[in-house]
Amino acid sequence: MKKRLEKLQTWMKENDIEVSFVTSSENVFYLSGYYTDPHERLLALVVFKEEEPLLVCPEMEVLNARGSGWEHEIMGFSDIDNPWEMVKQAISKRVKEVSKAAIEKEHLNVERYELLSSLLPKAAFISAEEKLRTLRMIKDAKELKIIEEACALADYAVEFGVSEIKEGKTELDVLNAVEYALKKKGVTEMSFATMVLTGANAASPHGNPGETKIKKGDLVLFDLGVVVDRYCSDITRTVAYGDIHDKQKEIYDTVLKAQLAAVEASKPGVTAADVDLTARRIIAEAGYGEYFPHRLGHGLGISVHEYPSLTETNQLVLEEGMVYTIEPGIYVPNVAGVRIEDDVYVTNDGVKVLTKFPKELQIIK
Amino acid sequence: MKKRLEKLQTWMKENDIEVSFVTSSENVFYLSGYYTDPHERLLALVVFKEEEPLLVCPEMEVLNARGSGWEHEIMGFSDIDNPWEMVKQAISKRVKEVSKAAIEKEHLNVERYELLSSLLPKAAFISAEEKLRTLRMIKDAKELKIIEEACALADYAVEFGVSEIKEGKTELDVLNAVEYALKKKGVTEMSFATMVLTGANAASPHGNPGETKIKKGDLVLFDLGVVVDRYCSDITRTVAYGDIHDKQKEIYDTVLKAQLAAVEASKPGVTAADVDLTARRIIAEAGYGEYFPHRLGHGLGISVHEYPSLTETNQLVLEEGMVYTIEPGIYVPNVAGVRIEDDVYVTNDGVKVLTKFPKELQIIK
Repeated sequence: MKKRLEKLQTWMKENDIEVSFVTSSENVFYLSGYYTDPHERLLALVVFKEEEPLLVCPEMEVLNARGSGWEHEIMGFSDIDNPWEMVKQAISKRVKEVSKAAIEKEHLNVERYELLSSLLPKAAFISAEEKLRTLRMIKDAKELKIIEEACALADYAVEFGVSEIKEGKTELDVLNAVEYALKKKGVTEMSFATMVLTGANAASPHGNPGETKIKKGDLVLFDLGVVVDRYCSDITRTVAYGDIHDKQKEIYDTVLKAQLAAVEASKPGVTAADVDLTARRIIAEAGYGEYFPHRLGHGLGISVHEYPSLTETNQLVLEEGMVYTIEPGIYVPNVAGVRIEDDVYVTNDGVKVLTKFPKELQIIK
Repeated sequence: MKKRLEKLQTWMKENDIEVSFVTSSENVFYLSGYYTDPHERLLALVVFKEEEPLLVCPEMEVLNARGSGWEHEIMGFSDIDNPWEMVKQAISKRVKEVSKAAIEKEHLNVERYELLSSLLPKAAFISAEEKLRTLRMIKDAKELKIIEEACALADYAVEFGVSEIKEGKTELDVLNAVEYALKKKGVTEMSFATMVLTGANAASPHGNPGETKIKKGDLVLFDLGVVVDRYCSDITRTVAYGDIHDKQKEIYDTVLKAQLAAVEASKPGVTAADVDLTARRIIAEAGYGEYFPHRLGHGLGISVHEYPSLTETNQLVLEEGMVYTIEPGIYVPNVAGVRIEDDVYVTNDGVKVLTKFPKELQIIK
């Protein structure tokens, strides 16, 4: 936590930024260790180049914030206080004048921006988001351990879901059973809306689970993730219910080959584009290029979509500590939809695959 | 839908606002009938005083937007388009110069605000939110019907939850069973995180459901809501498991008396404060004033918290068509926590109570 703040402060010094005003729950958590959803109330972590940082939160959250390990100042405000006046005083106690301030431009709303601007009338406002995304991209050992736990629960969810597949059950039947099983394991939040898709639904990259019944000869696609201690996992597996035809098998084999090759290609020094293109070329060479309409993967952490983005044009060089998904897919309308997705962690010479449910085609009898 | 737009346009004419740029999913839905969560992509309803309004959404949403009944222009953009340039052209096709624009200041982020400001360099920006909240406060017959459905499902959820109470079951056991039962009824979204609280947990207005086991002599509090066609319900009931002591009964009776009196006091012409104070006085007279720390209720609709707010100071006059909760509570640490909450619709001479699960103390054997 301390190191993360120091890195932000180094960036502030390099760029002559007197104050960073961090407001998204995710970034406040990343820098302070304290997570809360303040709803309509203000939450802010105010960071200075040298001076003591300050956490601003509703009064009733102060004890929790302290309990989470934040050792610096906490300023709680009640519903009758004016937190902005308190922020102004706290800032002026620390710095004489603010000429440059960093904010989360994609998170801060106009109402608060106008209030903050009036407190800091001489400040130019720049975005802190790119820097925070870059910091969050490299995971430490503690973060990795939590993500591994989240991945183990995702594996369990797929395993349980596969065991629930039976003739006549609907996508929602299986989905509900999976989420119920996870709740019994203490899971309280999914990374995103769970997908269980079959038949034509699975053949659309934007299908939604519904009352479609699973029947023999169908592929069934699971895409889900579990949140553990605020970190997300994200897995996709596609299994066959009964015997499938050769075209479905060919599509499955192509996706699997692409997925394995992209895992193999992932290591420090190669670019995100290299990895994406490794998978994309295999799919294109098999004649399915136009049926793989999305990027290969995305970073994963406190947010289910974060840096790095694995696209065919992103020249970002991979580094040890990055965590991302590798999820090629082929969706041929009325024929088959297959996606296989792992979460991986970049090591010093390759990747560790964190999701472990088998990837060879599973045929459920 | 047409009437809602017209009301916004009337307000724009009265205030010389050339453009309203509406961006929250809730308000876009309210005005257009189209709901989507665009995630990081832009969604905007651009409304003019006289000229044709415009819905801006991701390309892949255009068909759904059309299917939802929006009859005016839809501008879809792909991931390689610049939607802001398209917005600029669409605006300049309709109006010569924008000197005043309305935006959702609590929703629009700084990044988009800066982009919009650069498109409309001469515009002053004012907030559209107060107006939209006021419009949304009065429900039409169609909205009422949907909220009634959502309330019926909330009643079912409480009924099911009560039937699941058994010695040794935990709060989470009962909660999971309730949500699973709702999923089987086709419910895909709750209004907020469901609460099932017992014992000391129920005696805190901010308790969280956990592994606490239900035992004889405890009160069990259910607070939950169901989303139907984007509208929320919100119900609270507190029941007794086995025989409870006199102090618990006294607290229950006091809350019930306050709740019934507030329902009775609700009608067009009285203020929100009148209704709040009707309940608050009864609780204070019984000696529990300090244990009722929150407002009496809140408006309910597309958002689970909207206008009107029933506080002891809100002088807003109630009108036919408003929908709000009436939810007094008394929380005495280590003694009892009781809250009883209905959703009501203001008629021409009183209210219609939309949640119907019994309010007389239910003793579960």
